[in-house]
Amino acid sequence: MKNEERSVGIVQTQYFTFAEPPNLMPLECGRSFGPITVAYETYGQLSDARDNAILIVHALSGDAHAAGYNSPEEEKPGWWDDMIGPGKAFDTEKYFIICSNIIGGCKGSTGPSSIDPETGKPYGIGFPVVTIRDMVDVQKALIDHLGIDTLLCVCGGSMGGMQVLQWVVSYPNMVRLAIPIATTSRLSPQAIAFDEVGRRAIMSDPDWMNGDYYGKAVPSNGLAIARMIGHITYLSDKSMHTKFARNLQDKAQYGYEFVTDFRVESYLRYKGDSFVKRFDANSYLFVTKAMDYFDLSQPQGSLAEALTVVKAKFLVISFSSDWLFPSYQSKEIVTALRKNNADVIYMEIQSDGGHDAFLLEVNQETRLISNFLEHGRK
Amino acid sequence: MKNEERSVGIVQTQYFTFAEPPNLMPLECGRSFGPITVAYETYGQLSDARDNAILIVHALSGDAHAAGYNSPEEEKPGWWDDMIGPGKAFDTEKYFIICSNIIGGCKGSTGPSSIDPETGKPYGIGFPVVTIRDMVDVQKALIDHLGIDTLLCVCGGSMGGMQVLQWVVSYPNMVRLAIPIATTSRLSPQAIAFDEVGRRAIMSDPDWMNGDYYGKAVPSNGLAIARMIGHITYLSDKSMHTKFARNLQDKAQYGYEFVTDFRVESYLRYKGDSFVKRFDANSYLFVTKAMDYFDLSQPQGSLAEALTVVKAKFLVISFSSDWLFPSYQSKEIVTALRKNNADVIYMEIQSDGGHDAFLLEVNQETRLISNFLEHGRK
Repeated sequence: MKNEERSVGIVQTQYFTFAEPPNLMPLECGRSFGPITVAYETYGQLSDARDNAILIVHALSGDAHAAGYNSPEEEKPGWWDDMIGPGKAFDTEKYFIICSNIIGGCKGSTGPSSIDPETGKPYGIGFPVVTIRDMVDVQKALIDHLGIDTLLCVCGGSMGGMQVLQWVVSYPNMVRLAIPIATTSRLSPQAIAFDEVGRRAIMSDPDWMNGDYYGKAVPSNGLAIARMIGHITYLSDKSMHTKFARNLQDKAQYGYEFVTDFRVESYLRYKGDSFVKRFDANSYLFVTKAMDYFDLSQPQGSLAEALTVVKAKFLVISFSSDWLFPSYQSKEIVTALRKNNADVIYMEIQSDGGHDAFLLEVNQETRLISNFLEHGRK
Repeated sequence: MKNEERSVGIVQTQYFTFAEPPNLMPLECGRSFGPITVAYETYGQLSDARDNAILIVHALSGDAHAAGYNSPEEEKPGWWDDMIGPGKAFDTEKYFIICSNIIGGCKGSTGPSSIDPETGKPYGIGFPVVTIRDMVDVQKALIDHLGIDTLLCVCGGSMGGMQVLQWVVSYPNMVRLAIPIATTSRLSPQAIAFDEVGRRAIMSDPDWMNGDYYGKAVPSNGLAIARMIGHITYLSDKSMHTKFARNLQDKAQYGYEFVTDFRVESYLRYKGDSFVKRFDANSYLFVTKAMDYFDLSQPQGSLAEALTVVKAKFLVISFSSDWLFPSYQSKEIVTALRKNNADVIYMEIQSDGGHDAFLLEVNQETRLISNFLEHGRK
């Protein structure tokens, strides 16, 4: 743990279990499922009026550990520590922040690597195909459990933003402020295509073994390839020029062999291989499928119709160089909200950071979000 | 063979072998290599003055069969038949068209799947790491063999465009007109990154066996994944919306299983799997490496300096929605040529077709190219 000012300090991940048989949770796929454990963390204090709770929802590879340190030895703080803490955008001196790990993930909440109590073995590929709506329903159960009737705000980037959009549609009376960042109401066919190639890489790795690899070798090549593809889509052409150019890695000239020549190759390999150590391949399949399936315009047929129920005020943020969920997709959301006379602020932040900009452009996001929260809570 | 008007008709692929030991060809990597066989086709008649020859150079997965039919049974004509034939852009009633398969490929020219006469076995991964310059040197040997001193034109798209650029630098006195299409003087780190993920997919397929898979199972999963990635980069966000939207494949609702849901998934799988039947995985490694290595600005340090030797007139064509080799990269070439007072026409064609537009926008290319050739030959 580094000696950081403005840190929430040491935090413990907590666990809440519900949907114990026979009270299973109905899922969008039609199956009922349980028990379900949710890993979550909280930062700050819930006010006596219980009106200052903010739910942070995470992206594909995120987890409940959004801020602070789980132990004094931990080198890096939680994934959005830049934004959550005393005096930060999500000011823990004012707000009670909750972040939970999604169902289907592999960071403490129930997912394909969890033990099925009926068989005593991991669910594997037999885990139900969960959706963004299911993720939100699980969060709703957690919020109920915490005794909170209304969330001051739900905020998240990328797949987190999809959960924000689902929250205001599934539980319109429970959300006062909504901040979807770098997100979309539905993936483009290009984004689905990249997800599908990643899944095929995992499922064609012989170590995947139809998802039944726990306790054996994991499908590390497949998962690394999937992550490498993903990582390219998180950066921008320009940020890659800035970061890597055509610089060589540890050599003065081409190797004329099938080894790493360029820095960008070395970087991607590192990113792919390190991801294997911290993420479950089956979870990657389930979570990308949930993203592909997300289409807020259905079944109504139009996004504006789907959003008629919405009551929250919105701050929609996109990034100019994000080509995975490009600004035009945020503008579609804004247009649909305005058709419903919703109260919407939209900001496209100029950034070369690509899709990852939502984790990088802390100063601009802080200014926008802290003002939005300050005005919106009144 | 379909009953096509304006077809060059039935054509035979021809073969030319040179660099027989001990007269090996020096390669850019430092190795000397031979024998080298080049597969090529010709269309039209070489004029008595031998001044109407046009060399067409192909992209990654192309071959020598650019026009017409190799047999009456062949269903599809050569890969650029729309552009080559009587009355077409490359008018075989006026010009003598040559197209040869690159060294390192798998379509008749010497490549990793060819038999090494020294061992009696395929070269496999022991094949030399060839470059774009080597590809051009092999074409030069073919042009010499055909008794042609000066090419009226060299034209190609994508990796073909790189060969065009290399031709005018390696053999400036041999090229009168140059038409690089949808190309770049050097790959961006993003494009290198996609190539590297494709190579990793091939090389981590257990059937790859360090390149020694000939006569056994081929690394079909790895090659299919590489091709799927490539294919996404050849299309545009918009063309994928138009082609696939979020339409489902053979079903009315999500399957909630890890099977194909979306049409775009089914399309990509088909493209990947069919590529395996017609392309060699080792060639994919070698050819993508050649593209990654290509950097015309080296060793001089600047593209303008590298192009000082150029004598040809240029028609540079790019496509507005090409994000693999975006228009800004063609503009870099144009700027560098103009610094050398070269005679350059530049046209960015408005198209949603992405990188593949160079194979699709036949009408616009025909108008530009036929005019350019007509004026340039005088």
